[in-house]
Amino acid sequence: MVTPSRSGVFDAATDQLVEQFTQSISFDKRLYVHDIRGSIAHSQMLAAQNLITQDEQRQIEAALLKIREEIAENRFELRNDLEDIHMHIEHALIERLGDIGRKLHTGRSRNDQVSTDFRLWVRNAIDKIDKKIIALQQAFVSRCDQDVDVILPAYTHLQRAQPVLAPHYWLAYCEKLQRDRDRLRDCRHRVNVCTLGSAAVAGTTLPIDRQDVAARLGFEEVSANSIDSSSDRDFVLETAFCLTMVAEHLSTWAEEWILWSTVEFGFIKLPHEFCTGSSIMPQKINPDVLELIRGKTGRMIGNLQTLLVLVKGLPLAYNRDLQEDKEPAFDTLDTRGLVLPVMEGVIRTLTVTREGMEQPLPPDFPPTDLA
Amino acid sequence: MVTPSRSGVFDAATDQLVEQFTQSISFDKRLYVHDIRGSIAHSQMLAAQNLITQDEQRQIEAALLKIREEIAENRFELRNDLEDIHMHIEHALIERLGDIGRKLHTGRSRNDQVSTDFRLWVRNAIDKIDKKIIALQQAFVSRCDQDVDVILPAYTHLQRAQPVLAPHYWLAYCEKLQRDRDRLRDCRHRVNVCTLGSAAVAGTTLPIDRQDVAARLGFEEVSANSIDSSSDRDFVLETAFCLTMVAEHLSTWAEEWILWSTVEFGFIKLPHEFCTGSSIMPQKINPDVLELIRGKTGRMIGNLQTLLVLVKGLPLAYNRDLQEDKEPAFDTLDTRGLVLPVMEGVIRTLTVTREGMEQPLPPDFPPTDLA
Amino acid sequence: MVTPSRSGVFDAATDQLVEQFTQSISFDKRLYVHDIRGSIAHSQMLAAQNLITQDEQRQIEAALLKIREEIAENRFELRNDLEDIHMHIEHALIERLGDIGRKLHTGRSRNDQVSTDFRLWVRNAIDKIDKKIIALQQAFVSRCDQDVDVILPAYTHLQRAQPVLAPHYWLAYCEKLQRDRDRLRDCRHRVNVCTLGSAAVAGTTLPIDRQDVAARLGFEEVSANSIDSSSDRDFVLETAFCLTMVAEHLSTWAEEWILWSTVEFGFIKLPHEFCTGSSIMPQKINPDVLELIRGKTGRMIGNLQTLLVLVKGLPLAYNRDLQEDKEPAFDTLDTRGLVLPVMEGVIRTLTVTREGMEQPLPPDFPPTDLA
Amino acid sequence: MVTPSRSGVFDAATDQLVEQFTQSISFDKRLYVHDIRGSIAHSQMLAAQNLITQDEQRQIEAALLKIREEIAENRFELRNDLEDIHMHIEHALIERLGDIGRKLHTGRSRNDQVSTDFRLWVRNAIDKIDKKIIALQQAFVSRCDQDVDVILPAYTHLQRAQPVLAPHYWLAYCEKLQRDRDRLRDCRHRVNVCTLGSAAVAGTTLPIDRQDVAARLGFEEVSANSIDSSSDRDFVLETAFCLTMVAEHLSTWAEEWILWSTVEFGFIKLPHEFCTGSSIMPQKINPDVLELIRGKTGRMIGNLQTLLVLVKGLPLAYNRDLQEDKEPAFDTLDTRGLVLPVMEGVIRTLTVTREGMEQPLPPDFPPTDLA
Repeated sequence: MVTPSRSGVFDAATDQLVEQFTQSISFDKRLYVHDIRGSIAHSQMLAAQNLITQDEQRQIEAALLKIREEIAENRFELRNDLEDIHMHIEHALIERLGDIGRKLHTGRSRNDQVSTDFRLWVRNAIDKIDKKIIALQQAFVSRCDQDVDVILPAYTHLQRAQPVLAPHYWLAYCEKLQRDRDRLRDCRHRVNVCTLGSAAVAGTTLPIDRQDVAARLGFEEVSANSIDSSSDRDFVLETAFCLTMVAEHLSTWAEEWILWSTVEFGFIKLPHEFCTGSSIMPQKINPDVLELIRGKTGRMIGNLQTLLVLVKGLPLAYNRDLQEDKEPAFDTLDTRGLVLPVMEGVIRTLTVTREGMEQPLPPDFPPTDLA
Repeated sequence: MVTPSRSGVFDAATDQLVEQFTQSISFDKRLYVHDIRGSIAHSQMLAAQNLITQDEQRQIEAALLKIREEIAENRFELRNDLEDIHMHIEHALIERLGDIGRKLHTGRSRNDQVSTDFRLWVRNAIDKIDKKIIALQQAFVSRCDQDVDVILPAYTHLQRAQPVLAPHYWLAYCEKLQRDRDRLRDCRHRVNVCTLGSAAVAGTTLPIDRQDVAARLGFEEVSANSIDSSSDRDFVLETAFCLTMVAEHLSTWAEEWILWSTVEFGFIKLPHEFCTGSSIMPQKINPDVLELIRGKTGRMIGNLQTLLVLVKGLPLAYNRDLQEDKEPAFDTLDTRGLVLPVMEGVIRTLTVTREGMEQPLPPDFPPTDLA
Repeated sequence: MVTPSRSGVFDAATDQLVEQFTQSISFDKRLYVHDIRGSIAHSQMLAAQNLITQDEQRQIEAALLKIREEIAENRFELRNDLEDIHMHIEHALIERLGDIGRKLHTGRSRNDQVSTDFRLWVRNAIDKIDKKIIALQQAFVSRCDQDVDVILPAYTHLQRAQPVLAPHYWLAYCEKLQRDRDRLRDCRHRVNVCTLGSAAVAGTTLPIDRQDVAARLGFEEVSANSIDSSSDRDFVLETAFCLTMVAEHLSTWAEEWILWSTVEFGFIKLPHEFCTGSSIMPQKINPDVLELIRGKTGRMIGNLQTLLVLVKGLPLAYNRDLQEDKEPAFDTLDTRGLVLPVMEGVIRTLTVTREGMEQPLPPDFPPTDLA
Repeated sequence: MVTPSRSGVFDAATDQLVEQFTQSISFDKRLYVHDIRGSIAHSQMLAAQNLITQDEQRQIEAALLKIREEIAENRFELRNDLEDIHMHIEHALIERLGDIGRKLHTGRSRNDQVSTDFRLWVRNAIDKIDKKIIALQQAFVSRCDQDVDVILPAYTHLQRAQPVLAPHYWLAYCEKLQRDRDRLRDCRHRVNVCTLGSAAVAGTTLPIDRQDVAARLGFEEVSANSIDSSSDRDFVLETAFCLTMVAEHLSTWAEEWILWSTVEFGFIKLPHEFCTGSSIMPQKINPDVLELIRGKTGRMIGNLQTLLVLVKGLPLAYNRDLQEDKEPAFDTLDTRGLVLPVMEGVIRTLTVTREGMEQPLPPDFPPTDLA
C-alpha cells in the first residue's frame, strides 16, 4: 500500500502501526465459537433457499467445524493483518474451499455478522451470570437456618437503629439480586434478536429467509429495520448497565462485611482463605477479597461510561468507533463472572463470631412498634 | 442548639448554614401531590384497620386536601428549617389538627414515606415520558407517506453506502424509540412497588395492611424485605439509565440532522423557529435546537453517573447520602420532558429540500444485492 | 415566525417552547457583573483606539453601571425571549443609548464575550474556593495542639495497623488539600487568558488592542488562535476536575468520621448542630452533614462527566452544545463553596470523646520499626 | 489453608479462584524495571546509612540486575500464587541470597514500594507521551507552509462562518495540544514525589535517609505525611484526566477530518493506509483510523471514571481497592501512546484535495470585519 509519494517518513512501519491500531483479533478471537455457529446456520439457510447447493453447504460446515477445533486447540495462527476473527475464519475457509468458501458471504455482510456473533456471545454470558446470581442467592438462603438465632443491629446512618435477625439481612441481599435477575431477563429479550439480513446497512435483494436463520440460532425475533440494526448497540449498553447494578449491590455488601469484620464491629470472622495477613503486623487479618469486590465497582461503572460515551453523537449507521464496544463488555462480563463465585465462597464459609452471637441486645434499642 | 462552649466562631450563622446545607425543600417541594396522596391512602388504611377512627381519618384527609390546595396556589410558606416537603406537610397538619395530626405517623416512618412519594412521582413521570415518545414515533410515521419518493444515501463510516428511501431512516428511529419504550415499561414494574410498612428499617409490629395501602396507590406489589426497601434506589438508577438511552438515540438523530442541514449535505431545511441566525453573518442558519438536544446528552449521562457514584459502597440501610438522588432524577426527567416535544416539533415541520429530493442516485452506488 | 404551512400543530406555543428550551437566562444571569465588567473594559479599549469617542465610552459605561445596579437590586426584568444575560444587557443598552449602545458590539462577538465573562466568573470562583480550602487547612492545624496527646489507630484495610497521634491524621488531610490548592493554582493560569478579539471565530480586522483589554481585566495572557479560543472549554473541564478531587478527599474524610462517630468506633462526638436525631429512636445521633458531604461527591463526578461528554466529538469551532457547560460548572463551584465552610465547622467543633482519648494502645500494636 | 470444617464445597479450587481473583502479576509485571530501580536505590541508601553492609548491598544489586535481565528475556517464571511483581522479585532475591535478600525489606513496606514503582512508571510514561505530543505539534506546523494558500471555511454551528487559511486550523490544534503539555508538566511535579519511608502507614523509626533515596531516583520532593502517602492516588487520577483532555482534543480533530473526508465536504483525501475499503462497495474509502481515534475517547473517559469511583469514600489509609488503579492507568497511557503516532502519520500524509483547494470563496462569506 506504500506509494512512492510518501518520502521515507512512512513505510512498512506505518502499515504495521496502523494494523496494530485497527486490529481487534487480540480481543475478539473469543467470539470464534459464535461466529462459526452463526456461519453454519447461515449456510444451512442458504442451502434451504437454494442459494447454495446441499453439497456446498456440507463442505462449508465441515470446514468450519474443523477450523473451530483447530482454534480450540490453539493450532490456528492469528495475525494482525487479518484484523478480526471473522476475517481469519473466512480467509481459512477460502484457502481450503476456494470459491465455495466465498459463497458463505452470500446475502451477508461483516456488519450483520459481527452483530450476530456478539449477540450470541452476550446472550450466553447473561445466562452464565444468571446461574451465578442464583448460586449467590442460594448461598444466602442456606445460611438462614443456621443463623436464625443471631440478632444483629439494623443501621440507618450507620447508627444502630433496631435489632433484626441475621437472616433479615441475608434476605435483603436476595431481594436486590432478584431485581438484578429480573433486569437481566428483560434485557436478554432485547439481546436475543436476529440482525442477520441487514447486510451492510440496507438489507439484500436475495431471497434469504431471516426467520429460518433466526430459529436455527435460537433468536426470539428478527430485527425490523436494517439501518437501525447496523447501528444498534443498545443490547451491549443495557447489559453493561444491568451488571453495573449487580456491582453496586455487591459494593454495599462488601462495605458492610468489611465494617463487620473490623475489630470495632467484630460481628463476623472471614474465612482465612479470603484474607491476607501482614508479615510485619501479624495481628492483622485483611479482608482483601471484599475490598477488591468493592473496588471492582469502579471498573463496572467505568466500562458503562466508556460505552455511553462511545455511541454519543454517532450518525447512522455503522461507524468503526463501534469496534470499541467489545473490550468494556468483555471486561464487565468477565469481572462479574469471577466476582460472583468468589463472593459465594465468602458467604458460604463465613463465621458469625462468638462475640457477635452473644452480644446482648443494645439496651437502648427501641421497640419495633413505631406508633 | 448553640452551646456556650462554642466560642463565638459558630453560632446562629452555623445553624443557618447547616440548615441550608441539609435542606431539600428547595427541590423536593414538587413531591407534595404524591406525598399527600400517599398520606391519604395511609390514613384510609389506618382507619380500615381501626388504628385511627373514621372521624380522625376524615379530618386528616380534609386537612391534607386543604394543604394541597394551598401549596398549588402558592399560599403555603416554605422554610429551610422544616427541611423537606414531608416535614412541612406534617407540621401544618399537626398545627391544624393537634394530636389527630400526629396519628398519621402511626406505623410509618419518614424513610418509607419518602420512598413511596418518590416512586409515585417517578411512575407518573415515566408515563408522561412514554406518551411523548409515542408522539415522536407518530411524528416520524406521519412523514413516511409524504417522503416516500425521497431517496437518501445510507451511510457507513459517514461515507455513502447504498440508496434508501427516506422513510427507511424515519422507521429506524422508531425502532430505537420502541426499545426505549420497552425498557421503560420493564423498569416501571420495578418502580411500581409499595415500600410502605418498612418503617424506619425493620417494619412495624402494628397490624397495618400493606396490600390495602398498595392497592389504594395503584402499586403492583409490596416489597418483601424492609432492610432492602429502606436502602433501595434501584428504581431511580434504572429510570435514569432508560432515559439516558433515549438521549443517546436523540444524540444520533440530532448529529445526523445537523449534518444534513449543512450547506455541504443540504438534504433538509430546518424550520426557522428551531434555528437562530447571526446578525453579523446573515447567510447563516444555525441548528441551535439540534445542537442543544445533542448537548443535553451530557447531562443525562452525568446525572446517571451521579446516581451510580452516590450509592456505591453505602452500607445498609438508609443513609442521608440518598437525599442526593432527587436532583439528578428530576433534572433527567425534566430534560427529557422538554426535549421530546421540541424534537417532535422539528420532525413535524422539517422540509426535505428541493436539492435533497432531486439529487440523482450517486452513480457509483452499488446494487443492494450483496452476493 | 409562524408560517401558514404549519397546520395548527405548531403555532405561538412552539415559539414559546423553543424559547424555553434554548434560553439560558435562568442560569446565566449570575454572570451579569462579569459581563458588565468585560463590556466596560472593552469600551475603554475602543475609546483608546479611537474606535468610539471618549464621550460615547462615558455614556456606555454610565449606562452599564446603572444596569448593573438595577440587576443587583432586582429591578431589571428578565425574559426568556432575550435568551441570555448578554442579550438582556445589550438590549437595555440600546434601548437607553440607541446607536451609541450598538457601538459596544464593535470588534466583539457574542462568542468571545461569553467566553470572557465565564472566564472572569470561574477565576473569581477559584479564588473564593481557595480561601475556603485554606480555612479548612487552618481548622485542621488549629486542632493539632489540642489533640497532641490523642493516640488513634492508623488503619490499613480498615484493620488497626499502628498507633499514631491524632495530628498525624489532621495533617494528612492538610497535605491532600494542599495538592488541591496547587492544582487550582495551575488551573487558574489556564483560566486567566483573554479570548476577546477572537470575535465569532476568525478575529477582526479592526485595529483593536487585545493586550490593553486583557490588562484592564487582569488577564495574564491573550489567546493565540481565534478558532481555538472559540471552541475552547478546557478551563471549565479542568476546574471541574480540580474540584472533583477536592470532593474525593472530602469523601474520604467524611467516610472516616462517619465510622469514628459510630457506637462501635466511638472515637469522636460530632457537634449536635451537624447531626440529626430521630423522634422514634431517641438514642440515635445521625451524622447527616457528613453523609451529605460524602454523597455530594456523586454530583461532582457527575458534573465532570457531563462536561467531558459534552465536548466529545464536537467539530470546531463554537457549537451551541457548549451552552450546556454552565449549569454543571455553577453547580460544582456552588456545591464546593457550601461544603467547605460546613466541613470547617465540623472540624472546629468536634470533640474527641473520653472513650477515644482514654483507650489504651491496642496491646498487639506492632512497634513502628519495620525492620 | 483448607480446614476440615469446609465440607467439600470449598477446597483447593477455592484457593486457586481466590489467587486468580487477587493476583495482579498479570498486569503489574511491567513495573519490574521500576521496582528493581527503586530497590537498588533503597539498598544504596541502606548501605550509606550503615543499615546493611556495602558487601550486602553489592550482592543485592547484582542479584536484582540479574533478575531484571531474566525478566526482560522472558526467562523468569511468573506465578499467580506470588500475587504481584514485587513479591516475585523479593522471592527470587531471597531464594538466591537467603537472609541477605530479606534485608532489602529494612525500613520499607510493600505499600510505599508499590507507590514508588508506580510513580516512576507514570513519570516515565508522561515523558514519552509529551514527546509524542510535540511530534504532533511539529506535524501540524510542518504543513503550514505547504498549505498556506489553502482557504477553508471556518464553521460555527457547523455552518460556514468565515474563510480562514488552512494553517489557522492547524495552529488551533497546536494551541490545544500546548495546554495538554502544560497540564502534563504541572501534573508531573505532583507525580514526582518520593513516598518511600512511609512504610506501611506510619513511617519507620529506623535512621533511613529519605532525601538520599529520593535524589537517587530523580524525585523532586519527599512526601510530608505517611498516612497521606499511603492513601494517595491523586497522581494517577490527575494523569488520567490530563490524557482524557488530550483525547477530547483528538476527538474534535477526528470528527472534523471525518467530515472533511466525506463526499459532501470533500476537503481532504486521507492517505489510503489509514483507511479501509469495502469489497462489496468499491466506491468507499472509510476513515477507520479517525473513527477509532474518536471512539477511543470513550475508554479514556471510562478509565478516568473507574479511578474517580475507585477512591470515592475510602477511609485512610491503604485499602486493597487501590490495586484496581493500575489497569485503567496502563490502558489510558498505552492507548494515548498508540494513538498519537498514528495521528501524526495521518497529519503528515494528508492531501488537501484539488476540489478543496480550488473551491471559490463562498460568495456569501461576510467580511471578517465585524463592526
